[in-house]
Amino acid sequence: MRPSRLLNVLTFALAAMSSPLAADEGMWMPQQVPALAERLAAAGFQGDPRTFADLTGFPMGAIVSLGGCSASFVSPDGLIVTNHHCVQGALQFNSRPDRNLMVDGFLARTRTEELPSGPGSRVFVTLAVEDVTAAVTGDIPAAVTGRAYHDLIERRQKELTAAREKQEGYRCTVASFFQGLKYFAITQLEIRDVRLVYAPAAGIGNFGGETDNWQWPRHTGDFSFLRAYVSPQGRPAAYSPDNVPFQPKHWLKVSARGASPGEVVFVAGYPGRTARFVTYDGVRETVDYQLPRTIRRNTEMIALLEKVGVGHPETALRVSTRIRSLNNGLTKTRGVHEAMVRGGVLRQKERQEAELVAWIAADPARQSKYGTVIPAISALNAERTRTRERNQLLADFAGATGSALGAAETLYRLAAERAKPDAERDPVFQERNWPRTRENLDRLQRNLDRRADHAVMTYNLAAIARLPADQRIEVIDRLVGLKPGQPDAEAAAAIDRWVGAQLEKSRLYDRDFRLGCFDRSRAELDAMEDPLLRVAAALYPVQEGIRNQAKETGGKLERLTPLYAEAVLARAGGLVAPDANGTLRVTFGTVKGVENRDGLFYLPQTTLKGVEQKATGKGEFNAPAAQLAAITALRTGRTSPYVDSRLKDVPVNFLSTVDTTGGNSGSATLNARNELVGLLFDGTYDTVASDYFYDTERTRSIHCDTRYLLWVMTEVDRADHLLREMTIVP
Amino acid sequence: MRPSRLLNVLTFALAAMSSPLAADEGMWMPQQVPALAERLAAAGFQGDPRTFADLTGFPMGAIVSLGGCSASFVSPDGLIVTNHHCVQGALQFNSRPDRNLMVDGFLARTRTEELPSGPGSRVFVTLAVEDVTAAVTGDIPAAVTGRAYHDLIERRQKELTAAREKQEGYRCTVASFFQGLKYFAITQLEIRDVRLVYAPAAGIGNFGGETDNWQWPRHTGDFSFLRAYVSPQGRPAAYSPDNVPFQPKHWLKVSARGASPGEVVFVAGYPGRTARFVTYDGVRETVDYQLPRTIRRNTEMIALLEKVGVGHPETALRVSTRIRSLNNGLTKTRGVHEAMVRGGVLRQKERQEAELVAWIAADPARQSKYGTVIPAISALNAERTRTRERNQLLADFAGATGSALGAAETLYRLAAERAKPDAERDPVFQERNWPRTRENLDRLQRNLDRRADHAVMTYNLAAIARLPADQRIEVIDRLVGLKPGQPDAEAAAAIDRWVGAQLEKSRLYDRDFRLGCFDRSRAELDAMEDPLLRVAAALYPVQEGIRNQAKETGGKLERLTPLYAEAVLARAGGLVAPDANGTLRVTFGTVKGVENRDGLFYLPQTTLKGVEQKATGKGEFNAPAAQLAAITALRTGRTSPYVDSRLKDVPVNFLSTVDTTGGNSGSATLNARNELVGLLFDGTYDTVASDYFYDTERTRSIHCDTRYLLWVMTEVDRADHLLREMTIVP
Repeated sequence: MRPSRLLNVLTFALAAMSSPLAADEGMWMPQQVPALAERLAAAGFQGDPRTFADLTGFPMGAIVSLGGCSASFVSPDGLIVTNHHCVQGALQFNSRPDRNLMVDGFLARTRTEELPSGPGSRVFVTLAVEDVTAAVTGDIPAAVTGRAYHDLIERRQKELTAAREKQEGYRCTVASFFQGLKYFAITQLEIRDVRLVYAPAAGIGNFGGETDNWQWPRHTGDFSFLRAYVSPQGRPAAYSPDNVPFQPKHWLKVSARGASPGEVVFVAGYPGRTARFVTYDGVRETVDYQLPRTIRRNTEMIALLEKVGVGHPETALRVSTRIRSLNNGLTKTRGVHEAMVRGGVLRQKERQEAELVAWIAADPARQSKYGTVIPAISALNAERTRTRERNQLLADFAGATGSALGAAETLYRLAAERAKPDAERDPVFQERNWPRTRENLDRLQRNLDRRADHAVMTYNLAAIARLPADQRIEVIDRLVGLKPGQPDAEAAAAIDRWVGAQLEKSRLYDRDFRLGCFDRSRAELDAMEDPLLRVAAALYPVQEGIRNQAKETGGKLERLTPLYAEAVLARAGGLVAPDANGTLRVTFGTVKGVENRDGLFYLPQTTLKGVEQKATGKGEFNAPAAQLAAITALRTGRTSPYVDSRLKDVPVNFLSTVDTTGGNSGSATLNARNELVGLLFDGTYDTVASDYFYDTERTRSIHCDTRYLLWVMTEVDRADHLLREMTIVP
Repeated sequence: MRPSRLLNVLTFALAAMSSPLAADEGMWMPQQVPALAERLAAAGFQGDPRTFADLTGFPMGAIVSLGGCSASFVSPDGLIVTNHHCVQGALQFNSRPDRNLMVDGFLARTRTEELPSGPGSRVFVTLAVEDVTAAVTGDIPAAVTGRAYHDLIERRQKELTAAREKQEGYRCTVASFFQGLKYFAITQLEIRDVRLVYAPAAGIGNFGGETDNWQWPRHTGDFSFLRAYVSPQGRPAAYSPDNVPFQPKHWLKVSARGASPGEVVFVAGYPGRTARFVTYDGVRETVDYQLPRTIRRNTEMIALLEKVGVGHPETALRVSTRIRSLNNGLTKTRGVHEAMVRGGVLRQKERQEAELVAWIAADPARQSKYGTVIPAISALNAERTRTRERNQLLADFAGATGSALGAAETLYRLAAERAKPDAERDPVFQERNWPRTRENLDRLQRNLDRRADHAVMTYNLAAIARLPADQRIEVIDRLVGLKPGQPDAEAAAAIDRWVGAQLEKSRLYDRDFRLGCFDRSRAELDAMEDPLLRVAAALYPVQEGIRNQAKETGGKLERLTPLYAEAVLARAGGLVAPDANGTLRVTFGTVKGVENRDGLFYLPQTTLKGVEQKATGKGEFNAPAAQLAAITALRTGRTSPYVDSRLKDVPVNFLSTVDTTGGNSGSATLNARNELVGLLFDGTYDTVASDYFYDTERTRSIHCDTRYLLWVMTEVDRADHLLREMTIVP
């Protein structure tokens, strides 16, 4: 895209700056960065902010998405660096009971040893971002609302997407910014052959495990390497031994000097979701309902999945990434809840909104334009509250992560959607997504486990069985043989019997059968007489009803929330970063410690000394023997260019004030000379609520210093060929 | 005593200083301080080191011992400030189920409201310290060793003590310094009427409880006030309503400015025990045997005592201080063990001794003088190892803290010792100690509980029942009906039956009966037919045998250890502080934070902000409502002279590098102008192993800032009359 056009688009971003926002807050669209010039200069940033607006130039052209994680090119041969925790799936996919890459790590000594990352692995290279607001929301009469409005803007987005995906290998997303106030079409190159190149052992890459997750001081070597492959013609293609390394136009140079306290750094990546433009009412529902629910369910689910793995190593392997992900979510959710309630974030949000309301009321024109927006949004939220738990339980049951029933639901819904013209299909089930859906169904094999499914389905049905009489899901009552008010033991027996019968006979655990269902119609699926497909068929009408209701409410909300965002922006003077939505962003900050609690200071850097202090030789702190030997060598005279002269040790992790969230994992951290100085991989526990409300004082992101990465590659894993492939700046 | 004489005595302390010891290490005898002048000046200390040598001058004359805790006079009317945790016994003694001073605190509004602290409460004012080394160890032929040597020097100490205690109210202790290389006679005034004046609520005085014990950041208002009373004639006397406040010659002024980072401070008090002059072999036994044993037993004992209190509030109250003390010990012991093993302290000690051995071997004269000392000490230690567990189990059983059997043992042994001439009695049972022993037997009432005794005796006997065949305690086997190799269940049944029978019939739970036994002979005690007194009588010969054996080994060790200490001193160049032994000491340091772990820095001060952060309204973090209200008032405009201008808040606790240990609790922390700026009350977890080996970098003591004390007294507890009584320096 052309920067000039974007700048034009973002005129609101250039309004006078009287807001108290620090340079640290904001996951900025690259196109907004030039407007930040003054602020960045004041913060000590020496680079040219204008370069960011060119997404295909340097450095933004080197920043890629893995779909859920961020990454960057670090060689002209498509070598990609990201977090260790972002390649868990690839490590799991390539693990066998006798070769556990998740524990031992992996290093391809040659290109031919590089392993396919598994189905569904992707590298997305952002090519263009266009403002399509007018095309999405322009010229719609005010009377059109609810489902009609929802369907209309959804159709327009589909059309915009389709037009941009005509060329093979391109992927387009029309994304909403500022709660639907703006829409941008983002076009990406979608590379489908992604290979695992190098991951250190878990004792480095996941050192500290769940114990250290979200914590500081941190000593995690959370880095790994992938490589993007394309057809010999240079186009995205499915895995083939004939494929060749992708040659990006830009790749990052790796700094051998890492980052130091006080230094200005920036992070470029694809943050997933934040909710800073959500109303107080919405945040309050999150605190009162969603977070406690997630805490409870994750806790129970982790216990459940850990139990099913005991004495069954294959099951344990299959549920391991799910447990890790649940644990991560649990820690985060607990932290958010704590920060919201005890930490006072909810009160701050309440105050913020009260100020907004007062600001609106202070001016008749504003009052007339925005005065009814917040109450109207609240009313819609309240409407959804009534059936939320029932609907959520049904969704949890039918779409359980990593389950065969979840696969059945997907297959059945796909069959139903396929019967429609493509433009009328639910966006998720449009033809453009079929390959990915198919890959997901393929990839599922590594997680699929009858024993785990039995436990999870039983757990979900037990909750459904306890629903009050006026909220029953009748089709489930009928299928399973449940009745409101039934004694728990009776319901449990019926559930156990029913679940056992469905799972025993279902062939969806068989990869070929499952993928063989992919192109089938509803009638064909029915004819297969698979118990889980029958369950999916039976649930389909109920779920469609819920979805249609959601579209009706959604359409009404889509009419209101842009006005809310407009009011927030107007009040703040315009230059505000939009909420994260999985698109490319840049955030600026400083390497800096923080007084975490009264009397306790998080120093900005950690070193190998901490690895020695924490290493226990087992569990989450099982630093590899080769690493401990390398540390001993360093302590007894061996020199390394990665020793920091001030710290007199190799730096491991550092803190900075950059504003990040989930999805940012693996993001490049760069210095003012655009050199890679670190990889973003986490935030401190105090940071978790920043998705809702950013606290300039306390928020800290956690990065792995490139000096640790280079030291491990040199001294522990001897990945010399990769070191030679990269450009290392002394 | 005359300083000139002492200086003379400590000539060894004046040798050239080439040792690398920092100013922070060392619990110095006040008489050593003038020799530290240069070092203290270099560290930034501005006071006159010579003043310390005058124990009856200012400031040392204001520093007192409570026997186990330290304290200091802060008014001309005998007002004493110490730690909150040092007045637990007084709070417990004055508590009733409906008036729990341990929770609610106490404030006497007038002198008449001041409460007796309970039997055994003491204030010791040090009057003189004399070198009596020649009188204790001089002129003994080299052939005299073992028990003969032990008895001889014990007798000489008794004679020295008796001579100095002729005057009523004086207490003398002849204490060993440098492992018996030096002996000093310390004469103290012993004040026996001690009253509770003021203790804040547990939510301030014990804020953080076990969770925060040994931790930082800390927010504990660990201060309380007592008052010393004497007869109208100004002499020490038992409690009487006619007694009047003691008028000390010196008392400390209280600084309203507390202590600030970088400031030189010193702590004057009565540190209990350190073991820095113990051989590596001795430390090793501590690590391999004593510490793990204490960890295991304390853990089990805490669980036991907590269980017996469930559903029995009176029992729970009676065992509460015991649990608190066990918990404190457990945390400390765990920390010591961890520091010793994982933290490498044991290795440092090993290296230190290897260097000493090499230094000895490097010179023929040294080798001839000290060459055999360390192996000889090791051989004696090894000898004791064989029966140590058996002897320890017997001691644990017969002398269990706070038990009726422990009282029986004391009474029986007292009767046996009383039959001898006073000069031949075991020092503990000499006439001079009878009043204290009697008070202990009286004070025991607040802890004595049949239910707790049953649990503890059963627990101890179960371990005795499992002793191997060649280590049996035959008298116990016979009494209880135990046999080696007996099935556990059978032994347990026999134990339970026997314990139940003894406890049920024993009248030792009755205060009057117990105190009535005090003056009885063995025959009279036998005639009382009390089951527990009979047990004590039966165990007496076995215990006497063990004690005699200990005297034999002790005498041999007393011949060796002074030589070891002499070698250490000679190698260090002379100016080294002796191990703590409960006598008056001074330690110098700086208010300073510490990098506790790689990446984590303990800031040197905490503030009210942390109280707010930690306050949960319950349990260990139950900050009183009045305090929270006072904080709110402060946050909303109320001013206070105790707000630190840099921190913009009232400081609560601070860290310093001073060298302290148990017994130092309650010690005055003074600034260079001799003003009270804080109260020492704890050390960080990293500090616990400093009793064995001092780590200059990591060791930190924890103090309560006088500004917090003054703020709480002013704003929370309105103790205006006490504030008026003290001299507060602005």
